[in-house]
Amino acid sequence: MHIENHPTMSIIGALFLMTAIVWPSGAMAQQHDAEYYELEKWFGEQWEADDKVVRARLAELQKRFGKKPNIISILVDDVGYTELGSYGGGKLRGAPTPNLDKMAAQGMRFLQYYSEVACTPSRIAMITGRHPIRTGVIGVIFPGTVNSGVPAEEVTTAELLSQAGYSTGMFGKWHVGFGDEYAPTAHGFDEAVWSEGNPAPWIQADMDMDGSQMVGHVNMRALVTGPPNLRGYYDNGGVLKAKKGQKPEILYKYSLEKYNTYEEEVFDQSIDFIERNAKADKPFYLYVGGKANHFFGAHPDFMDTPAQTNTAAQMTETDYNLGRLLKAVKDAGIAENTLVVWSSDNGPMYHFHPAGGYSMFDKGEKGLTFEGGVRVPAIAWWPGMIEEGQEPLDIFHVSDWHTTFASIAGVYDKIPDDVVTDGVDQSALLLMGEDKGRRDYVFMYKNDELKAVRKDWIKFRLVPEEFHGWYYNLMHDPAERYPDGLYYGGYDSYGLTRLVQEHMALVKKFPHRPNTAYQRQPERPYNPAPTLKYETRKQVDW
Amino acid sequence: MHIENHPTMSIIGALFLMTAIVWPSGAMAQQHDAEYYELEKWFGEQWEADDKVVRARLAELQKRFGKKPNIISILVDDVGYTELGSYGGGKLRGAPTPNLDKMAAQGMRFLQYYSEVACTPSRIAMITGRHPIRTGVIGVIFPGTVNSGVPAEEVTTAELLSQAGYSTGMFGKWHVGFGDEYAPTAHGFDEAVWSEGNPAPWIQADMDMDGSQMVGHVNMRALVTGPPNLRGYYDNGGVLKAKKGQKPEILYKYSLEKYNTYEEEVFDQSIDFIERNAKADKPFYLYVGGKANHFFGAHPDFMDTPAQTNTAAQMTETDYNLGRLLKAVKDAGIAENTLVVWSSDNGPMYHFHPAGGYSMFDKGEKGLTFEGGVRVPAIAWWPGMIEEGQEPLDIFHVSDWHTTFASIAGVYDKIPDDVVTDGVDQSALLLMGEDKGRRDYVFMYKNDELKAVRKDWIKFRLVPEEFHGWYYNLMHDPAERYPDGLYYGGYDSYGLTRLVQEHMALVKKFPHRPNTAYQRQPERPYNPAPTLKYETRKQVDW
Repeated sequence: MHIENHPTMSIIGALFLMTAIVWPSGAMAQQHDAEYYELEKWFGEQWEADDKVVRARLAELQKRFGKKPNIISILVDDVGYTELGSYGGGKLRGAPTPNLDKMAAQGMRFLQYYSEVACTPSRIAMITGRHPIRTGVIGVIFPGTVNSGVPAEEVTTAELLSQAGYSTGMFGKWHVGFGDEYAPTAHGFDEAVWSEGNPAPWIQADMDMDGSQMVGHVNMRALVTGPPNLRGYYDNGGVLKAKKGQKPEILYKYSLEKYNTYEEEVFDQSIDFIERNAKADKPFYLYVGGKANHFFGAHPDFMDTPAQTNTAAQMTETDYNLGRLLKAVKDAGIAENTLVVWSSDNGPMYHFHPAGGYSMFDKGEKGLTFEGGVRVPAIAWWPGMIEEGQEPLDIFHVSDWHTTFASIAGVYDKIPDDVVTDGVDQSALLLMGEDKGRRDYVFMYKNDELKAVRKDWIKFRLVPEEFHGWYYNLMHDPAERYPDGLYYGGYDSYGLTRLVQEHMALVKKFPHRPNTAYQRQPERPYNPAPTLKYETRKQVDW
Repeated sequence: MHIENHPTMSIIGALFLMTAIVWPSGAMAQQHDAEYYELEKWFGEQWEADDKVVRARLAELQKRFGKKPNIISILVDDVGYTELGSYGGGKLRGAPTPNLDKMAAQGMRFLQYYSEVACTPSRIAMITGRHPIRTGVIGVIFPGTVNSGVPAEEVTTAELLSQAGYSTGMFGKWHVGFGDEYAPTAHGFDEAVWSEGNPAPWIQADMDMDGSQMVGHVNMRALVTGPPNLRGYYDNGGVLKAKKGQKPEILYKYSLEKYNTYEEEVFDQSIDFIERNAKADKPFYLYVGGKANHFFGAHPDFMDTPAQTNTAAQMTETDYNLGRLLKAVKDAGIAENTLVVWSSDNGPMYHFHPAGGYSMFDKGEKGLTFEGGVRVPAIAWWPGMIEEGQEPLDIFHVSDWHTTFASIAGVYDKIPDDVVTDGVDQSALLLMGEDKGRRDYVFMYKNDELKAVRKDWIKFRLVPEEFHGWYYNLMHDPAERYPDGLYYGGYDSYGLTRLVQEHMALVKKFPHRPNTAYQRQPERPYNPAPTLKYETRKQVDW
């Protein structure tokens, strides 16, 4: 039964025709997704009571410190669910993670945290509280793409927190738009030093790399000799710097050495920001885009791990830098007034194995909505406010940081009501613990395709181009090996087509912004492939 | 290149022809496998020094308690590597394991513990310190098999510890032989109450089950209507009881109810044994064969888990019983003089999913030598002697319990020298901690086929019937997804064919006992399939 031409839309469209949807309306500060209101019906009163507890604790803290709490959010690249020691990796992967493990032991380690499938989508969701598809930035913004990035109309976390009186800073990988109009300082940050994408030494490959040079443990030969489209401009070619209202300037051009050491600089800059703002009258919001497992590059000081892989070097490095940052927070005497969260932006990227990360989930990787692609490690730390050693089962989505930070900063009601906000306020979960989470559902998109929906322990995988879907019980089968029901025609084992219908119905009322991420790229200088100079062999004439 | 008819022997035979092997000989108390002597060359002096420390600590303890330490070994069925909370499962699997997690936190949790591939093989290895193939019991002893079981010539742990002055008791699943000559009390135990295999309610299926009855969460219909070979005699049909020298008697016949509640009785009997022996002059050795995830059956009291699966019911039950046992040890005031070890006998059995266990390793299950089949959870606990919270990377094999218990009981030198002992003395690892393990290698057999060898982080998988093999780096790739080298002809990426050669060369000197496990089964009463009475449908005559 084929309804529309778009692969996912066939099932979605079909479902949509079947049921008339009613969703709550009327005066409200935010427009949530439809399923949120289902939960609110059941738990609304409890949420209200919990909110009073949360507000009282935050008020008490504000009284003690004379300002709102600081917020630090660290997002790293491509770390799979089982990579940290506390998640079953660490030394078993040749890369102990003592600082992340200590952070987890002193705080809250999420067991069911979901990112989006890839870098740009997770970053957009994190800073807007919305699924990427709603913003028009449906997928990874590739090098050289113009006119795609976080739209001016989106109200970012930095903008909200600025309204709440926060000083705001961003350091590291940004990757939600190439060009000045998409700079962090054009979207709410007072100051920033950033790379538009991953700083890419192979820009230089065409020119002067000889194929024996190493980025981390990885030899660049494959890229030097690779197809031309890998060797184009990646972004504007350097690390940028700006303050709000200023035109971004290139701080330095990328180089092989800078690529290997950039992570260290990002944390140096972040720590400097913390130290400068610790004693200020205003609270601060710091967003750090760390590298972790992004395929290449690691500081020479961290190469010598037991695994002797780029992944292990990067994990050891990112763990060390996280430790440095937490030490800076403690040394500044602000730990009890600072929420620090750490999370991965998506699952591992196996293309360059054993660089690129790993996950014990046998299905899924960066780009896929199987658990291995989107279930990632995440930790929240706030001494005295978040109880130690917690490991909640509550589902958390990357978009929840936006709404939760807004709530903690007291500007939740400033979240616009004319767009759908997917993030929910998880401050009660952070401050009151397990079972206080406010979602038991997650929608999983790959670009503009809705691939799966999770509700409670049941995951519903839509089969593209077919009016069909499979169910998995993630408690019985965390790795999605044994289907546990199906949707076919009118038969629907777990009834989750209802969520899809209601989700899509709301899209009709609040349409997505037009897709900008996957467009034809503008003409740009072509870097010809380098000539490979083989030694001339003796020829035989016959 | 085909050398012999036996699948594995083709490569082994070929390798064997290539190199002349020299192994150490001369006076020694035990005959180890060849690779052990390679390690001894390098670490022998350190081992000697460590042994002095271990001996001194044990002597001090003996002085304090006036006797040697008690030893309790609990072996459970089919628990996969990631099932316990401390291994990343627990509540994520709908079955929290607070007691096993507490045991791990207070003791040593092994990250790289290896069982044999299945039930009987692991049990033979555990009580003899030898790979099953050496004993002639190469695989699972199936119901009704006669003349197969632990040979009289094998010196079991119970026999060694009896020589050391221990009282010895065995309770629960034995499964190393059907018949009086294979009874635990015929192999060193002073007393025992046991089932020869898994007590099987489906014996009755032919007679009086109607296919709607439940064992645990599992409906018996499949077995009632299954093929006749599933419905034969399983063993002698009841739980047996004996003291040393006595003929075993049937304590009671199995029934559906007994099958569901048997695990509780096993621990009741074990706790009774502990209480009776706690204050005695003699130390005791207790071997408990628990059920855990073996496909069917769980006590009604534990059915109501969040997962609502038989696996979760069994895990909750076995965890509770483990807690009861540890409480009994503490209550008896003997915790500091009692080593308690817990381990799984092999990976999960997926045939009956979601009953039967689970593992995040995507390759391997009960019966297979991939990590999912043989890497299992294991914990050692000994307050005051084993330091809390340890998680060593050291490789441990199920056969090591035999040698380690003998060492702790002071009878290591009574291990016979006329057979190869695969187990190594791991008492220094237990008492001195990580890096004190005495093996960096494991041989992995499926029945009589050597399927894989691990050395350090490298696993070598032999390809049957081919002169060929693949290497995996388990630090880079714990789930064996990406081969990292190969053996083909003379090319050998990691040189582990040497281990295979030396291992097989030693077999020539110390031959295996003849295989007894997989023989033609004797004639036995045939239980006809039940007649399935379908409602007669109206027929059309045309």
